[in-house]
Amino acid sequence: MLTYSLDKTKGISLYEQLYSAIRGDIVRGTLATGEKLPSKRALAAHLEISVVTVENAYEQLAAEGYIRSEEKRGYYVCPVDTPPEPESSKLPPEPGEPEERRWFLDFVTNSTAAEYFPFDTWARLMRRTILDKSTDLLRPTPSTGALELRRAIADWLRAFRGMGVSASQIILGAGTESLYSLLIKLLGRDKCYAVEDPGYGKIAKIYESDDVTVRRIALDEAGLSAEALRRSDADVVHISPSHHYPTGIVMPIGRRQELLRWAGEKEGRYILEDDYDSEFRFVGRPIPTLFAADERERVIYLNTFSKTIAPSIRMSYMILPPHLLAAYQQKLGFYACTVSSFEQYTLAKFLTQGHYEHHLNRMKTRYHQKRDAVIAAIRAGLPRAEIMEQDAGLHFLVRLDTHLADDELQSRAAEQGIRLALLSDYYSDPRNAPPHVLVVNYSGIQPERLGEGLRRLNTIMEGNDHV
Amino acid sequence: MLTYSLDKTKGISLYEQLYSAIRGDIVRGTLATGEKLPSKRALAAHLEISVVTVENAYEQLAAEGYIRSEEKRGYYVCPVDTPPEPESSKLPPEPGEPEERRWFLDFVTNSTAAEYFPFDTWARLMRRTILDKSTDLLRPTPSTGALELRRAIADWLRAFRGMGVSASQIILGAGTESLYSLLIKLLGRDKCYAVEDPGYGKIAKIYESDDVTVRRIALDEAGLSAEALRRSDADVVHISPSHHYPTGIVMPIGRRQELLRWAGEKEGRYILEDDYDSEFRFVGRPIPTLFAADERERVIYLNTFSKTIAPSIRMSYMILPPHLLAAYQQKLGFYACTVSSFEQYTLAKFLTQGHYEHHLNRMKTRYHQKRDAVIAAIRAGLPRAEIMEQDAGLHFLVRLDTHLADDELQSRAAEQGIRLALLSDYYSDPRNAPPHVLVVNYSGIQPERLGEGLRRLNTIMEGNDHV
Repeated sequence: MLTYSLDKTKGISLYEQLYSAIRGDIVRGTLATGEKLPSKRALAAHLEISVVTVENAYEQLAAEGYIRSEEKRGYYVCPVDTPPEPESSKLPPEPGEPEERRWFLDFVTNSTAAEYFPFDTWARLMRRTILDKSTDLLRPTPSTGALELRRAIADWLRAFRGMGVSASQIILGAGTESLYSLLIKLLGRDKCYAVEDPGYGKIAKIYESDDVTVRRIALDEAGLSAEALRRSDADVVHISPSHHYPTGIVMPIGRRQELLRWAGEKEGRYILEDDYDSEFRFVGRPIPTLFAADERERVIYLNTFSKTIAPSIRMSYMILPPHLLAAYQQKLGFYACTVSSFEQYTLAKFLTQGHYEHHLNRMKTRYHQKRDAVIAAIRAGLPRAEIMEQDAGLHFLVRLDTHLADDELQSRAAEQGIRLALLSDYYSDPRNAPPHVLVVNYSGIQPERLGEGLRRLNTIMEGNDHV
Repeated sequence: MLTYSLDKTKGISLYEQLYSAIRGDIVRGTLATGEKLPSKRALAAHLEISVVTVENAYEQLAAEGYIRSEEKRGYYVCPVDTPPEPESSKLPPEPGEPEERRWFLDFVTNSTAAEYFPFDTWARLMRRTILDKSTDLLRPTPSTGALELRRAIADWLRAFRGMGVSASQIILGAGTESLYSLLIKLLGRDKCYAVEDPGYGKIAKIYESDDVTVRRIALDEAGLSAEALRRSDADVVHISPSHHYPTGIVMPIGRRQELLRWAGEKEGRYILEDDYDSEFRFVGRPIPTLFAADERERVIYLNTFSKTIAPSIRMSYMILPPHLLAAYQQKLGFYACTVSSFEQYTLAKFLTQGHYEHHLNRMKTRYHQKRDAVIAAIRAGLPRAEIMEQDAGLHFLVRLDTHLADDELQSRAAEQGIRLALLSDYYSDPRNAPPHVLVVNYSGIQPERLGEGLRRLNTIMEGNDHV
C-alpha cells in the first residue's frame, strides 16, 4: 500500500501533499503505467486521513491526466515520461530599470512636458466616464471604436480641419503603427509600399517587419513626385504632405494634384496621408488635407492623439474612403478594437466639451514660444548657422557652418553630452543628404542649457575639442 | 487689378476672404499659370485693406503652392488643375447605434456583469497613478510594457500559477489578437500555423487575415495529438491545454509531453499556449501550464486581463522563452507598446496591492454559483438532457435529447428568441460534430428567464412549435 508521511502542520493542505507525493511516484516510475491505485477508502484508512482528502487528490491527478478512472473498477496510472534532470534555472536575469543615457542637450527626442497635460480635466472626465458608462465599459466597443468617439472626431475634423467625413469611415487603433498593420491586411500584402526618402525611418521598418515590399522614393524640393512614383512599381504611397519630417516640406497644390492623378490611373493604388503634426502650424490657416481634395476615393487619412495629448494615450485613427468600408468590415470587422473603452469615452468627452481645442491652443502657444526661444538662442550661439524655418511642427532645420563630416560631428558632440539629429540620419543613403544640417526637435529641449550646449557645439565645429 | 468685394462684417477674417477669392480665381483659371500678382502694396491700396492682410493671404497661398514668390520680383501663379465639378456628396450615411437583436435567452455571449467590476478600486488606483506617475505617463513605456507591470505579472504567475518567469520575458499588447500578429512577425510568416478543430473560430480567422497558412487539426478525446500534428506540415500550434473551448478538454500530462517532444524534434517549432480562462477552475488546484513543463524553450504562453477584469481593458501578455528575447528586440523592439500607460500602471497597482486576487476570488465564487444555478435549472427544465461538466471555465456542454438537426434546432429556437451555440458551430465541417450538443456560455444568462426559455426549447425539441 502507498505510504506517505503527510504533515498537518505544514501549511499545505493534506490533499495537496498527497497529490504531490503520488504525482512524484508516477513521474519517477515508482508507480508504473497501468498499475491500479488503492481504493479511496483503503488508502484513507491506511494513511489515517479522510476519504474526501484522497478523493480530492485522485480527482486532481485524474484532471491532469496522471491517472484515469475506470467506472466501478478504480484508478489506474497513465503513461507519463520521466522528465530529464532539471537543469539549473535558465531564467533570464531580471531587467533593471532601462539604462538611459542622460544627455546634457538632446536634439533628437521630442517630448511633451508633463505640466502641459490637463491631468485634472482628464481625471475628472475619466471619473465621469466610470459613473455614466459603467455598463458600456464592460462591453467591447465595435471593432472600429465607440460610435460616440468616432462622431466626436468627425465633428472635430469638420470644424477644425475642413474635412467632411462620416463617423462610419473612422477606424480607431492603439497607435498609428497598429493601423499600418490593418491597412496592409486591407490593401494587400502583395502590394508594393512606397515611403519618403528622407523620412521617419520607423515607417519603412514597420512595413518591412510586416513582410511587404518597400520602395524608398527620393524627394525633390516639393516632396515626393508622381513621376518618381511612376518609375517605381509602388501601389501604395505613405506621405506627410502637410509637413514632411524631417525636411519640413509642405507639398504644393500642383504636386498634390499630380499624386491624386497617379493614384487614379490604376485600380488598387492608394495614398496614405499621415497628418501626424498638422495641428502645430503657427502661422496662417492649417494646410488643407489631400484627403479633402481627393475626388476619386484614393486617399486614406491617418492621425493620432498620442502626439497632441500625451504619448501614454495610445489612440490613433484612420479614415477610409467610402468604397473601402465594406471590404474592411468583411476582412477585418471581426478584430476587437485595440483601444481601451475607458479612454475612448474619456476622449469623446474631452473633444465634445471643447477641452481638446483649448488644450491644442495652449500647446500651440507654448510650442511657438519655445520655438522662438530656441531659434533666438541658436542665432546668438551659432551666428554663422542658417536657420531654415517653416512656421510649423515640432522641428526645424539648421545648416551648420562646419567642415566636419556628419558622423564625426555627431560622435564628437556625443562626447560632450550633446545628442544631434542630422538630416543625413533620415536618408537611406546618407551620402545623398546635404551635409551638416541639424534637425532641431525642440519640444524636449531645456532652454537654460542651450547657451552652454551651443558653446560646446561651436567649439567642436571649429575643430577644437577642448571645451 | 484684382477686384474682390471683401466684407468686414462677415465673421471671416479679411485675409481668409482674400485668400479664398484668389485661390478661386487660380483654380477656375481666371488667373493663368505664370501670371504675376499685383504687389502687396498696390493690391492693398486698390482694395483699401492693410498690406499685412494681403501679405498673409499671399503667404498662405504660397505655403499651399498656389503661387510662388520670386525674390525681388513678386508672386507668380503656379500650374494648378481645374478640378472636376464637385459631385453631390458621396459621404456614407452616419451609422446609427448598432442594431443588436435582443434575445430572450442567449447561450452564445459570455458577458461580465457590470456590478462585478471593482469600479471604485479601479478609479482610486487610476487617480493614484495620475498623482504618482505624472511624468512617467508622458513618456512612452518600453516596447514590451512598463517594467513595473511586467514585474507584477511575473510575481502573480509565480504565486498563483506556479510559473517561474522573469519580467524580461513578458510582452504586453492591446488584446491577444495583436499579440498573434507580433508572433507571426517573430516566428515567420512562412511558417504553417495549426489550430484546434473544433475551436474558437476567430483564432483561425486572425491567422488567415495575417496571410499565413493555417491547418485545422481534428481533436480526439484528449485534445490535439502530436501524431495528428506530425501528419500535417505545421510548425507552430495554437492550443488551450488547460481548458479547451468549446469541448472543455483538459489535456492530460501524457499528451502534453508528446506535444513537447513534437516541438523539440525540429528547429523552429513552437507551441502557443493560450491560457485564456484558466483562472476559473472551481475544484482543485489550477492545472499546471505547459509552459512550466517545457524544458526545451518551445512554449510561448499567452493570457489576458480582458476576460478576468473587463473586456474594456485591452491588456494581454505573452511570455517568450529566453532564447527568443534577443530576436524579439531586434525584429520588433522598435514597435511602440500598444497599451495605454495609464492602464498599465493602474493594473500594476491592482495586482501588487492584492486587488486582483480578491477580485478573481469573488468572480470565481459568483460564477460557480451561477453555474450551479444554471445547471440546476437545466436538470429541472430538460430532464432528458445530459450535462457534461468539467468544473472549470465559463461554459459547459449539454447533450440535448432531440431528433432535430442542429441548424433546424437553431433556427426554430431563434424564432422563439433563444440564441443557441451548438458544438457543431465550432467545427470547420459541422458534419464531424456530435449532434445537438449545446454549448452553454452561462456568464451572461439571466437565471430568472431560464425556466421559461427551457420550456420553449423543450417544446421545440418535441417537434411542437406552438409554444
